[in-house]
Amino acid sequence: MTDIVQRPSGRRADALRDVRITRHYTKHAEGSVLVEFGDTKVICTASVVERVPEFLRDRGQGWLTAEYGMLPRATHTRSDREAARGKQTGRTQEIQRLIGRALRAVFDLELLGPRTVHIDCDVIQADGGTRTASITGAFVAAHDAVSKLLAAGRIETTPITDYVAAISVGMYDGMPVLDLDYEEDSRCDTDMNVVMTGAGGFVEVQGTAEGVPFSRTEMNALLDLAQAGIATLIEKQKAALEIKRD
Amino acid sequence: MTDIVQRPSGRRADALRDVRITRHYTKHAEGSVLVEFGDTKVICTASVVERVPEFLRDRGQGWLTAEYGMLPRATHTRSDREAARGKQTGRTQEIQRLIGRALRAVFDLELLGPRTVHIDCDVIQADGGTRTASITGAFVAAHDAVSKLLAAGRIETTPITDYVAAISVGMYDGMPVLDLDYEEDSRCDTDMNVVMTGAGGFVEVQGTAEGVPFSRTEMNALLDLAQAGIATLIEKQKAALEIKRD
Amino acid sequence: MTDIVQRPSGRRADALRDVRITRHYTKHAEGSVLVEFGDTKVICTASVVERVPEFLRDRGQGWLTAEYGMLPRATHTRSDREAARGKQTGRTQEIQRLIGRALRAVFDLELLGPRTVHIDCDVIQADGGTRTASITGAFVAAHDAVSKLLAAGRIETTPITDYVAAISVGMYDGMPVLDLDYEEDSRCDTDMNVVMTGAGGFVEVQGTAEGVPFSRTEMNALLDLAQAGIATLIEKQKAALEIKRD
Amino acid sequence: MTDIVQRPSGRRADALRDVRITRHYTKHAEGSVLVEFGDTKVICTASVVERVPEFLRDRGQGWLTAEYGMLPRATHTRSDREAARGKQTGRTQEIQRLIGRALRAVFDLELLGPRTVHIDCDVIQADGGTRTASITGAFVAAHDAVSKLLAAGRIETTPITDYVAAISVGMYDGMPVLDLDYEEDSRCDTDMNVVMTGAGGFVEVQGTAEGVPFSRTEMNALLDLAQAGIATLIEKQKAALEIKRD
Amino acid sequence: MTDIVQRPSGRRADALRDVRITRHYTKHAEGSVLVEFGDTKVICTASVVERVPEFLRDRGQGWLTAEYGMLPRATHTRSDREAARGKQTGRTQEIQRLIGRALRAVFDLELLGPRTVHIDCDVIQADGGTRTASITGAFVAAHDAVSKLLAAGRIETTPITDYVAAISVGMYDGMPVLDLDYEEDSRCDTDMNVVMTGAGGFVEVQGTAEGVPFSRTEMNALLDLAQAGIATLIEKQKAALEIKRD
Amino acid sequence: MTDIVQRPSGRRADALRDVRITRHYTKHAEGSVLVEFGDTKVICTASVVERVPEFLRDRGQGWLTAEYGMLPRATHTRSDREAARGKQTGRTQEIQRLIGRALRAVFDLELLGPRTVHIDCDVIQADGGTRTASITGAFVAAHDAVSKLLAAGRIETTPITDYVAAISVGMYDGMPVLDLDYEEDSRCDTDMNVVMTGAGGFVEVQGTAEGVPFSRTEMNALLDLAQAGIATLIEKQKAALEIKRD
Repeated sequence: MTDIVQRPSGRRADALRDVRITRHYTKHAEGSVLVEFGDTKVICTASVVERVPEFLRDRGQGWLTAEYGMLPRATHTRSDREAARGKQTGRTQEIQRLIGRALRAVFDLELLGPRTVHIDCDVIQADGGTRTASITGAFVAAHDAVSKLLAAGRIETTPITDYVAAISVGMYDGMPVLDLDYEEDSRCDTDMNVVMTGAGGFVEVQGTAEGVPFSRTEMNALLDLAQAGIATLIEKQKAALEIKRD
Repeated sequence: MTDIVQRPSGRRADALRDVRITRHYTKHAEGSVLVEFGDTKVICTASVVERVPEFLRDRGQGWLTAEYGMLPRATHTRSDREAARGKQTGRTQEIQRLIGRALRAVFDLELLGPRTVHIDCDVIQADGGTRTASITGAFVAAHDAVSKLLAAGRIETTPITDYVAAISVGMYDGMPVLDLDYEEDSRCDTDMNVVMTGAGGFVEVQGTAEGVPFSRTEMNALLDLAQAGIATLIEKQKAALEIKRD
Repeated sequence: MTDIVQRPSGRRADALRDVRITRHYTKHAEGSVLVEFGDTKVICTASVVERVPEFLRDRGQGWLTAEYGMLPRATHTRSDREAARGKQTGRTQEIQRLIGRALRAVFDLELLGPRTVHIDCDVIQADGGTRTASITGAFVAAHDAVSKLLAAGRIETTPITDYVAAISVGMYDGMPVLDLDYEEDSRCDTDMNVVMTGAGGFVEVQGTAEGVPFSRTEMNALLDLAQAGIATLIEKQKAALEIKRD
Repeated sequence: MTDIVQRPSGRRADALRDVRITRHYTKHAEGSVLVEFGDTKVICTASVVERVPEFLRDRGQGWLTAEYGMLPRATHTRSDREAARGKQTGRTQEIQRLIGRALRAVFDLELLGPRTVHIDCDVIQADGGTRTASITGAFVAAHDAVSKLLAAGRIETTPITDYVAAISVGMYDGMPVLDLDYEEDSRCDTDMNVVMTGAGGFVEVQGTAEGVPFSRTEMNALLDLAQAGIATLIEKQKAALEIKRD
Repeated sequence: MTDIVQRPSGRRADALRDVRITRHYTKHAEGSVLVEFGDTKVICTASVVERVPEFLRDRGQGWLTAEYGMLPRATHTRSDREAARGKQTGRTQEIQRLIGRALRAVFDLELLGPRTVHIDCDVIQADGGTRTASITGAFVAAHDAVSKLLAAGRIETTPITDYVAAISVGMYDGMPVLDLDYEEDSRCDTDMNVVMTGAGGFVEVQGTAEGVPFSRTEMNALLDLAQAGIATLIEKQKAALEIKRD
Repeated sequence: MTDIVQRPSGRRADALRDVRITRHYTKHAEGSVLVEFGDTKVICTASVVERVPEFLRDRGQGWLTAEYGMLPRATHTRSDREAARGKQTGRTQEIQRLIGRALRAVFDLELLGPRTVHIDCDVIQADGGTRTASITGAFVAAHDAVSKLLAAGRIETTPITDYVAAISVGMYDGMPVLDLDYEEDSRCDTDMNVVMTGAGGFVEVQGTAEGVPFSRTEMNALLDLAQAGIATLIEKQKAALEIKRD
């Protein structure tokens, strides 16, 4: 892949931004992570309640659901506060449904037992890739919450079956690039979000041509980039989870 | 591809359902199409208003937007009426955003001029694939609406730059299959919706692992099926559009 | 009654439009009817659920309720989608309350037992008289749903006590006329909707002077027209219900 | 008409309850009336604003619109406050639409000029007939508001073309009776609300069979009662409007 | 305190408006009071239901909650009807939370038993001080409701532990004044609402500088005025409650 | 004041928690502050838009408004997300109205000119005193936003007329204490929030007896504590604002 085209970020086509995963970020949640993909910063918490939604009542299994939000001034210009407008945008709903599906892909809900894990991803600063950062951070928060359930003897076997992380890729000026920041994303022809497991399986592929439609060849190049990027992210999740709390 | 696995529909792995596109289905809309993918039936209308949304004011260009709904008893069991509940579900919003993006991919909004095309896709009977049928039918409705604008001299050059259609594909019992009906969809491991243009470019690829994650090999097989299926759908759109109204 | 005034429709003052009642129109609902009064087309479904609303809990009796909607482009110019606006208009609520009352007038809710019949009337093309077409079609859909309950042995005695149908009448340019289409309705001085049973009793009479108030004499002439029109509609319901499905 | 059946109220079949119309009831509104039909008490105000709704912009004419509400404990058992529930019931919307239509029937909106009369009818104590009391009282409030416009020289000719009042009638135990109170209304087979002008024209007739359908003969008897009752109410409106304020 | 500054009302700095408390104002509620502070008129009702909110289920104790509303034309210019807007303003919510807290301060909820007292305060005419009039009147309504519970033997010991009333005070043109009417309130620098018990304890003090911040000295002068005013109000509550109903 | 009673926090009765004010916390907002009162952490941003609300159109002056929110898991147990519920609680509305009033008390809106300062206070971790921390931090964020307007020459004279900060005080087990944390707050008899300016004037005093009413003597002791605490907070604001950004 040629690097003749210069990315606005100055990064190589296949370079992630600096990724930082800070556990135990706030004190109340069973899992609480600050995830940073460059200037994108998201607080991901996992909360466990001993209840399941109505549609799962008396089925023995558990549930995992996600909500997503952005502080009004996480972005360049202030957005309306969704709570004040009285409803979530379609974009917000799409993202929180995506986060929920991504995490459920690595959760055995039977093993979780009759309880619900609530994931909350709140963007405090946005610079592109908030949904992929959310999934990547939320996994770590959910892992911490599960560890507490195990430590407390409330479950015996972990319901987590694999790692899961996500990254965006896109066609920037004809070049496939990894992990778009806001400036790159807004000038991009194709934007693709990819969610994969530690075992290398695809959980979600969502590619959208913002301008010119994309070809199979381009799609293949994008998927190659995403696979490598996600492998790196999962290494970072593992490293973060190995740190013992003092 | 082996056909040893039997689809519930009895169709070959690469077979579409019967697809019917009926133009001029209702009398008021500028474009009105009943699209049928087997037992899935959607009324798609295109309405033109000489106004643009606030965010495009005084920019000279036009807009195309889509809304989607299902009659409460389009499905096996009755769903709540969204108008009575007072809000659209996240699923509805995702679908209508997808339809809008798909059609805008083949619309030159400058050439459309300062007017809005409203697409309405209303499912009167659902049997899987309502979003792909909606996109396929909505294109024909939009085309009819544009023809009226051209015939009336309100625009000089068509803003439509290509055909666009959509199909679902999925992994059924380990076999990649085309155009899932409801029964197949609900037993499927991976469900992928693909939107392509007449020129063969990808507009959207949305693949989700409902159960086991999918591999690159499976993804490639699914995309092959989708490409062939969409080529057939676009033939059907062309055939429908060639029919002169008496 | 003089026919010197010419109706826009060209019909005689006492002539209904072509009325067509198509049963088994969609496949999932227990009763599903397409009713057409000329160019007015409404899909009426009856869905049975084994539950009653909270206010009837443990009372042994059943309930019948109705909802009404219009596709956004059922009309000359596109209306806002009620689900997107987040609420139903006052007009919609009035109509769905009327449909529910009309059908309950011929339902013995004790005999129905602890279950609810949900009527959904969705207008796919509007040309005046959508509420009267809805009532007339919904009765047939409800009848089909009840027949299924009887055939399945879930109830022993039909809860349906009589036929019920509805028609509009109005003063058009000083002349009482039957079954107004949109153009007539919008130029009409008085608009009256009448709901009657097979036995000839009145269930609802809703007359409104849009312009000049109406006299007792005019009211009597309108009721005469309505009585004859409804008798014809009930013949059509009976004929439709006699058709055996292959 | 036989009086052998005894009304719960002890009134003769053709007797109104005590009707009191108190003008200048609250001090801010251009017209403010407390109307009492026996124990039913409604505050009716008319407010004038120098603005018209969007759909009448630049048309020169005015508008009259009505809203209706009930204090939560106006009734035997407390109802939910509509403002707290976040929406008005279908019943409320039906009533406020009826009040608006009734008053517009005697308003020449061209003569009113580009302003809006807002009618507010708020029930502080309910004992049946709140919608008919509202219409009867609202007319007087609107008349007072118009008088102020005339006195201030803001309009030259009154836009009020006639009186308008309303009453309920019903079949009680086989007997047609006038002006139902709550107890009578809840045991009644047929309930009919009639709105008429001073000239004796019908503006609205809304009859509903709560139990047994009603016959033409019964309908005629009910309309006779209503005509006489409304004539009396209009006398009371005239008497109230003749009182000069000190 | 100097009286050189003239209040718009002409009242002395420490003078209340005419206060009138009329019990049994409407007939359905367990307690129903019209409270008037000059031209401010509020209907306060207390309704008892044998149910508690979810968060108190199976705790044995009761609850008291308050709602507040204003008729749209209670004010100089018409306000939007909150039920029509679909939500209560922040101001309304603040006031109804204040009323609830004030009354709960003198209610022993254990003694009340597992039932809820709903307070409704509806302003029919506003001239400043609606929240303080509401609290003062609501206490009397709640007292009447409790008396009925006692008389019916549904509770044995009164849960009411003391009187409670409220008044506003403010800095008007540098002078501390009692019980602001609308005109005074809108020209006032500081506005303070004080809620006190019969025993002279403070339940709420809410002081807001609308213009210039206030000093400790001013605060003390305002509290002195409020204490005296509330003592008078509680005398009026006692006098009202001593009146036997005929 | 006696220190024999031990606060759960171990702090002296007149001791603030550790207060930290971190400017430039997020990168997009004109002013962005992380304020910490012990374990209570709030992100306060100030955003400037060149627009005023409708009610100030063409009046030349500006506006300042505030919104408040809490991340769902900022608290011990997860709260519903207000954006998902579709409305803000009464508590949220009360707090954001308080923050707005507090800051407007030190803003000359004429000097601000026709623009709006939007304050957003989002609690990422709650441990009591979120509203007082919000006001204290929001002032610094607003100050930074104003400095940018001055530096850019968009205004010539600062509209900020004084400092403003807030603190809570309460009666804990009979002892007046400063700056309640969550545990203290939930066991407190009286809770009072005080907002004061740098010049020592009161902007708001909101005292509520949660249990036993409070006396004048207690009130005076609480105000003494608050005055001293706010003086310290304003020192911290000044110190934070003196730091030059690298």
